[in-house]
Amino acid sequence: MKYLGGEYDVIVIGAGHAGCEAALASARMGCKTLVCAINIDSIALMSCNPNIGGTAKGHLVKEIDALGGEMGINADHTYIQSRMLNTSKGPAVHSLRVQADKKRYSERMKWVLEKEENLYLKQLEVTEILTENGKVTGVMTKNGAYFTAKAVVITSGTYLKSKIIIGEVNFNEGPSGLYPANELSKCLSDFGLNLRRFKTGTPARVNKRSVDFSKMTIQPGDDKVVPFSFMSKNIEREQLPCYLTYTNEETHNVIRRNIERSPLYNGSIKSTGPRYCPSIEDKVMRFPDKLQHQIFIEPEGEYTEEMYVQGMSSSLPEEVQMEMLKTIPGLENVEVMRIGYAIEYDCIDPTQLKLSLETKNVEGLFSGGQINGSSGYEEAASQGLVAGINAARKVKNLEPLILGRSDAYIGVLIDDLVTKGTEEPYRMMTSRSEYRLLLRQDNADLRLTEIGHEIGLVTEERYNRYLDKKKSIEEEIERIKALQITNKREVNEFLESKNSAPLKKPVNFYELIKRPELDYFILADLDTERPELEDAVMEQVNIVSKYEGYIEKQLDQVKQFKKFESKQLPNELDYSNVKGLRIEAIQKLNKIRPVNIGQASRISGVSPADISVLMIYLEQYYR
Amino acid sequence: MKYLGGEYDVIVIGAGHAGCEAALASARMGCKTLVCAINIDSIALMSCNPNIGGTAKGHLVKEIDALGGEMGINADHTYIQSRMLNTSKGPAVHSLRVQADKKRYSERMKWVLEKEENLYLKQLEVTEILTENGKVTGVMTKNGAYFTAKAVVITSGTYLKSKIIIGEVNFNEGPSGLYPANELSKCLSDFGLNLRRFKTGTPARVNKRSVDFSKMTIQPGDDKVVPFSFMSKNIEREQLPCYLTYTNEETHNVIRRNIERSPLYNGSIKSTGPRYCPSIEDKVMRFPDKLQHQIFIEPEGEYTEEMYVQGMSSSLPEEVQMEMLKTIPGLENVEVMRIGYAIEYDCIDPTQLKLSLETKNVEGLFSGGQINGSSGYEEAASQGLVAGINAARKVKNLEPLILGRSDAYIGVLIDDLVTKGTEEPYRMMTSRSEYRLLLRQDNADLRLTEIGHEIGLVTEERYNRYLDKKKSIEEEIERIKALQITNKREVNEFLESKNSAPLKKPVNFYELIKRPELDYFILADLDTERPELEDAVMEQVNIVSKYEGYIEKQLDQVKQFKKFESKQLPNELDYSNVKGLRIEAIQKLNKIRPVNIGQASRISGVSPADISVLMIYLEQYYR
Repeated sequence: MKYLGGEYDVIVIGAGHAGCEAALASARMGCKTLVCAINIDSIALMSCNPNIGGTAKGHLVKEIDALGGEMGINADHTYIQSRMLNTSKGPAVHSLRVQADKKRYSERMKWVLEKEENLYLKQLEVTEILTENGKVTGVMTKNGAYFTAKAVVITSGTYLKSKIIIGEVNFNEGPSGLYPANELSKCLSDFGLNLRRFKTGTPARVNKRSVDFSKMTIQPGDDKVVPFSFMSKNIEREQLPCYLTYTNEETHNVIRRNIERSPLYNGSIKSTGPRYCPSIEDKVMRFPDKLQHQIFIEPEGEYTEEMYVQGMSSSLPEEVQMEMLKTIPGLENVEVMRIGYAIEYDCIDPTQLKLSLETKNVEGLFSGGQINGSSGYEEAASQGLVAGINAARKVKNLEPLILGRSDAYIGVLIDDLVTKGTEEPYRMMTSRSEYRLLLRQDNADLRLTEIGHEIGLVTEERYNRYLDKKKSIEEEIERIKALQITNKREVNEFLESKNSAPLKKPVNFYELIKRPELDYFILADLDTERPELEDAVMEQVNIVSKYEGYIEKQLDQVKQFKKFESKQLPNELDYSNVKGLRIEAIQKLNKIRPVNIGQASRISGVSPADISVLMIYLEQYYR
Repeated sequence: MKYLGGEYDVIVIGAGHAGCEAALASARMGCKTLVCAINIDSIALMSCNPNIGGTAKGHLVKEIDALGGEMGINADHTYIQSRMLNTSKGPAVHSLRVQADKKRYSERMKWVLEKEENLYLKQLEVTEILTENGKVTGVMTKNGAYFTAKAVVITSGTYLKSKIIIGEVNFNEGPSGLYPANELSKCLSDFGLNLRRFKTGTPARVNKRSVDFSKMTIQPGDDKVVPFSFMSKNIEREQLPCYLTYTNEETHNVIRRNIERSPLYNGSIKSTGPRYCPSIEDKVMRFPDKLQHQIFIEPEGEYTEEMYVQGMSSSLPEEVQMEMLKTIPGLENVEVMRIGYAIEYDCIDPTQLKLSLETKNVEGLFSGGQINGSSGYEEAASQGLVAGINAARKVKNLEPLILGRSDAYIGVLIDDLVTKGTEEPYRMMTSRSEYRLLLRQDNADLRLTEIGHEIGLVTEERYNRYLDKKKSIEEEIERIKALQITNKREVNEFLESKNSAPLKKPVNFYELIKRPELDYFILADLDTERPELEDAVMEQVNIVSKYEGYIEKQLDQVKQFKKFESKQLPNELDYSNVKGLRIEAIQKLNKIRPVNIGQASRISGVSPADISVLMIYLEQYYR
């Protein structure tokens, strides 16, 4: 009863945030791409919080956009509130975050997939990945159809052997009563991939009418909205507010009194949850001195009364969740529409992947997203994008695209996962990047559009717009470098009014900007010839001028870093033949198989001494 | 670990088309109502065709609306095409049908539920209906919470022990990868309810871009749109077309060649499917002489490329479905997004229900929709509405609302199910009504608004608007009854221009309308004093005048019918004590327990002779 359902270049399993990017990238690069999902009404579903972006995650979205991905554009089309976070800090950590309309976000992404040339969206459950001689050949589906492909990308999220846990109750289901993908999990094991159990959780959803917002602090959106996408213009619209409230001693007492009923604490959950997105019981138990925790009440959409209780993720029994929610100011009479739960699922140890996100075990099998041990929609989408790109490049017999740690947060994310591995769901943070002054969200397009264009994901329209922007920035910097400001009285009076020291001699405008109390915008009055420029251009001119010194310093570090990154390690190298390496280093190096000295140096268990040994060995090897 | 989740008056299990109406009715009648669904993102999901209304079904929607239900209003808000069917025939069979935006229909209905006072929507799986001494006391959920209630309405659709069947493949799942409700099925059995297996099916969904519409006939919406709801005004908007194409000999050959692989024909499906909504293989095999069958390609929404292939419902294997679809003009290169399938499910033998839709076995347990053996969203919503109303009335210790066969199609539907039972999924048709000239969709508001108001579902605003309309109709009829048309030349010339015989003597305008070639509108020029009236008012005036004779005749029949309906049969009557009844009649009567002679006469197996015996018995009994 098996029959050939169709022949494709690339097949993507799953259509969450990773799967959508993978499929779109592959299709846009000209590969005939099949994307299958158990339920195609759940495409790009925000199963947890209704936000896109946030600290460091906003950077990922901007990078996805610069490379020609969809997440940013989709968020721009469906946001219901937009905020730039961390604006009191330097530009490196500014991060855009939006509340998105959950249903509309999913609806639009599905529509984009449906309309994409070369992309075929089907409601199908894949039960097996087919291989021949260690190479992917296609997939088998539950209905008996098999589909051939030269590459397969698995982006199954939390659906592999998923198990929902609410206090003492648990059942083998995916989110919202959907079936888990049990057979696929077995198939991956059979390929020799080590699976592990991670867990994540989500809080309750409540009915807006039952919340007393008068006891909370309103959090409106920004007056001026910055889009995620380089291509979005005029996306102003009415925004919905969020609300801030806090837990208190009473909340914490409810949790402490019931902690024995927490599956996390009584040992019935053995899997590892996300450290930086802990459940409320985790926060209360880990930080006993904290008297309160922030709780945000966030709308799930424009056409629903459902609201998300950010910060109250929990796997405590339903009745305990109810009790603790009601202790929170404004939630005394809360009506819960969906209770919080934890979900356990199988995922891959990502050190079994190459930097291209191809599995080392099975040629042509790529994986991206939560299945690789990450958490977060943006982390998922980033990997999905790279996995999709590299699946397509594999089909086209091209070298994989590997973004370096100095190129993009996406590079940091993948290198961290693949090189260091992770013992818990991995979340992106700005502190994970060594070069965060370079990897800003504001320059994501300048960093990555060239690459996106080269691999064929960035349209000519976007590329030309990018070239125009780049040229404008360069010209404006040239202009202000040539602009002399004299030390005449009016100038000094102006500077004094800005609490800045008077000039003793004429100075270059470009240098003047560097004074901490000044910037390109403050000095506009001294610059009467300034041309009309886009906000984004002026922002770049300002940052590049003001932070020149720091940026230069980091660029020097990147040069150093790249030296190591350029020292290729031969793929066939058996590290047990390298004399002088410590046993742990040999084991780790043989397992991870780093592509260069730089990557080798980041493997935990490989010491600086091991790296010296390797460097000497390499010199001899290449001689 | 069981705990009290909350106390309610009424609990509704399931939030499909029946559940939504049941919950809204109960809440609007002042009962604290819980509605639970396995996945509250699937509320009011149109799992099959993306239409509301149609022949006889449009009548049901109008009746639901007149009684204060939501289906009509929801369809008015989310329609993407509207057509009045059967306009070439008499007004009794005119039926409104719309294509609705599937996602938006569901989204809006969810929002209505969320905002309804007294209504509490929760994502919960009910695993058990709790009873004490044969009376409902509440429900138990999978998470361990139990909820108390004085009445429970079960509207579980196809989810009871559902099984998806596609050719040789089958799996125990609900639609779209959702879990079936297996435990609930067992619970109903334990109550002594007889369950049976019914089946239904759905066709493939295809991507619009792959359809060659140039080979099909376009079917646009009506220029002038009539709303379903009495309360909707100004609902004009841009409409999307449907497309008509046909199967052909090649299609039929594919089916015949593969008929042994049809689970319907090879015996692997033993359950009964809907006679009036058969699969394509059924149509081809049952009508071997028919050379073609109509196929409509219908949009599933405004923001999706998915289209529904009306008429190609099938449980043939995926590959056979693919092959047969591609034989259809315009579908040669079709891209299927979801394949057709059959679904088998448990349902109740509806003769175990009272006319109030309360089960005879368990006091306070009501059931509505597909679980009662019906098919169709409108049939489901109608029963849901009545079950919800009667659950609320039970809580309030009021007599149940029972609509008679002469009051409404809803009355016909429920009487047919409960009195006659059904051996296949029951679909409403105009031919099922004895009084279809009275039960028109155009007068649904006039027939039922009073009742809706009396039970507390029709708002004062709607009621007053209804009274105004009624008054306008009565006044206008009075006016035209008094209006004399003389036999002067201009009049006769006008009549001749309408191919109508000239007047020999003055005639009453009201009588003139009755001429077959004339109507109220055609005669407008002879009626210079006509006041400005709403379209709906003029329509009534016209129909009432033109069809007066037929209507009077049917009203006489209703009088006869009501005579029998008023002859109450005592509830405690043991029919084996009634001498002269045939054994079959005794058995059926004891099972159905009709409330009056009329209902008894409609039970299959009860003969006119049995009815005579009963009449004589009754006379003695009451004496």
